[in-house]
Amino acid sequence: MVKVAILGFGVVGSGVAELLRKNSEKIAATARCEVELKYILDVKNSPESEFSEKIIQDFETIEKDEEVTIVAECIGGKGAALDYVRRALLAGKSVVTSNKELIASCGLELLQIAKQQRVSLLFEASVGGGIPIIRPLSQCLASNRIEEIYGILNGTTNYILTQMIQCEKSFEEALKEAQRLGYAEADPTADVEGIDACRKISILADLCFGKNVPPEKVETEGIKNVTAQDVTLAQDLGYGIKLLGRAFRTNAESEISAYVAPHLVAANTLLANVSDVMNGIVVRGNAVGQCLFYGPGAGQMPTASAVVADIIDAALHADDKKYINWEAEAPGCFIPGAEVESRWFLRTSALPEKVAAILENAKISKLTDQCAVITPAMKREELLNLNLPILSAFRVLE
Amino acid sequence: MVKVAILGFGVVGSGVAELLRKNSEKIAATARCEVELKYILDVKNSPESEFSEKIIQDFETIEKDEEVTIVAECIGGKGAALDYVRRALLAGKSVVTSNKELIASCGLELLQIAKQQRVSLLFEASVGGGIPIIRPLSQCLASNRIEEIYGILNGTTNYILTQMIQCEKSFEEALKEAQRLGYAEADPTADVEGIDACRKISILADLCFGKNVPPEKVETEGIKNVTAQDVTLAQDLGYGIKLLGRAFRTNAESEISAYVAPHLVAANTLLANVSDVMNGIVVRGNAVGQCLFYGPGAGQMPTASAVVADIIDAALHADDKKYINWEAEAPGCFIPGAEVESRWFLRTSALPEKVAAILENAKISKLTDQCAVITPAMKREELLNLNLPILSAFRVLE
Repeated sequence: MVKVAILGFGVVGSGVAELLRKNSEKIAATARCEVELKYILDVKNSPESEFSEKIIQDFETIEKDEEVTIVAECIGGKGAALDYVRRALLAGKSVVTSNKELIASCGLELLQIAKQQRVSLLFEASVGGGIPIIRPLSQCLASNRIEEIYGILNGTTNYILTQMIQCEKSFEEALKEAQRLGYAEADPTADVEGIDACRKISILADLCFGKNVPPEKVETEGIKNVTAQDVTLAQDLGYGIKLLGRAFRTNAESEISAYVAPHLVAANTLLANVSDVMNGIVVRGNAVGQCLFYGPGAGQMPTASAVVADIIDAALHADDKKYINWEAEAPGCFIPGAEVESRWFLRTSALPEKVAAILENAKISKLTDQCAVITPAMKREELLNLNLPILSAFRVLE
Repeated sequence: MVKVAILGFGVVGSGVAELLRKNSEKIAATARCEVELKYILDVKNSPESEFSEKIIQDFETIEKDEEVTIVAECIGGKGAALDYVRRALLAGKSVVTSNKELIASCGLELLQIAKQQRVSLLFEASVGGGIPIIRPLSQCLASNRIEEIYGILNGTTNYILTQMIQCEKSFEEALKEAQRLGYAEADPTADVEGIDACRKISILADLCFGKNVPPEKVETEGIKNVTAQDVTLAQDLGYGIKLLGRAFRTNAESEISAYVAPHLVAANTLLANVSDVMNGIVVRGNAVGQCLFYGPGAGQMPTASAVVADIIDAALHADDKKYINWEAEAPGCFIPGAEVESRWFLRTSALPEKVAAILENAKISKLTDQCAVITPAMKREELLNLNLPILSAFRVLE
């Protein structure tokens, strides 16, 4: 028998409680022991909940209860969550979490505490929601030197872009629709400005390259500047527009880069066909080549699916802990996005004749008062030197 | 330090040796110890190989060498491979293998031996080549009741069908092209007749449902009967044709079914866009919903990627073994494909008017002397009662 405490009884926390109940037989069979939910920590009481008897308000009870060996942190953010996770680890409990902000910012420190305390810190749900990605990266692809990882890491923005592409909506219309359906929050900043995707690509980069990549170093551009004209002109050139997080080794041996930005993705690729709120993540390893992982990147039960899988894993490895780890950032190894070349989708108010004169042989897609091309590979600042008035400029995914 | 023996120095075995050498640093870091290749068992000597000094001819040397704790079986088939795997396990060594025939037919027995001997038997490479699927199913999705799994499990037939769909080739032309490129063997029977896919879906069904599904119970139809007319008419109806292995829970609680057959797959799904030699596997769980795993399903280095990942896992769990297990088949639980209803793509030489009279409201796609429809859901034998002369009949994936 393993006893678990859930911290936070919001969408994810209540999903975890529900899944532990609903699939209890399967979970016990896989964990090779019963998994009992002992406490739920929440600020309010929820007397109407079937779990109301388990709800408590003070973390200390959990911290001091030696029966509780696994804590599932579902609070989010870096306030109480960070304090509780630290204390749970220091109290010798394994912690599982879906908190991308916490892992992206404090993962290095927390993993070190977990290692010192000989407990597990697992976070499959922090990236890709229910999609298995953390474990495949750290285990199944362990024999590979990972060269690159990129993907659609945020369902809200993917829904908005899909609406813009498939239903010809404007950004504002699509955002409103997403809010109406509960896919976007009233304050959509973290999603729309790419902050959520930034945290996730930071975590993936940490894992793939073994060095800490602080989210604040990852240049992040959201989707606010993507217009209906961009969508139309990109389609005409054979591309869809997707918000991607991307982390990769640059040419030099130990150098890496990572950024979040709208990208043009060739329409005939699987990634361009990852629609609505779904996520898709592509990994390129030096032995396996390219793999793609696709599924629901958010939502109550998909996220709970990953959190409970981590609970099972922590229960199975009660004696022989699994340590995921990465090292501190090595100075000079991170190449800022501004220094990374790529081909660009350039939308300009210049006349097509002028564009053709500057970018020979480029296919030009036209609207009445503007046009777009795909440039040769260059750094972003070189775009300015083309002397074309820029309406939009987005990287092209190769 | 962990010492490994490779059995069989063919395409996969030499890939494993090469990958252990090439990525030795990464592998040692992940396995937390050096992984040394001590022996390669092969019938011939390969003096030109850089590994020639390690090549031996007698298995007994490996069996009796207590330094060797992990054996990578890359021989294939159920002859020598079965004998050696059994003996390696009984000698207390962990075994990793890419051998789908072995695991599909003898997995139950071999996993029991592994458990008794307290060693690992891992087989990530047996399904999906380099695509992480065995571990995601048994770990990341462990919190789910898996409802269904299906996918494109054989690259050769997918290449042939892709050529038929995208390049309008006949089956015979596409097969020849596949043989020319080395994607199909001189004797393509195991691929073309679905035998390879059958073994793989049997393994996936074992894992998903926890009961042994013997491959001989899995109704298997290959792609020999897929014609250019099928491809054309299916496209007109909005579908691509893919060879799928599929295993699923039927309505009743403990009943399952599995089969391999060409399916019509809606053209706008990711699976329909899995082209050439790539594989794609869809899993549906009661918490996560739908996930898809995509990547190279065969090939030397992708397969080696998965074999070496298993070696790392076996090395990491030298003391605390990981037991994947399933139970013996429960009588009466397996529902044969013939009893499973589905919608059907029916190509017939009957006149469209006759088809329209029998299947009201069905969209009919026509060629000069034949036509095709999608029927309502029914069992295969009910198709015969429609009194339409059947040229082809393939299930439609819902």
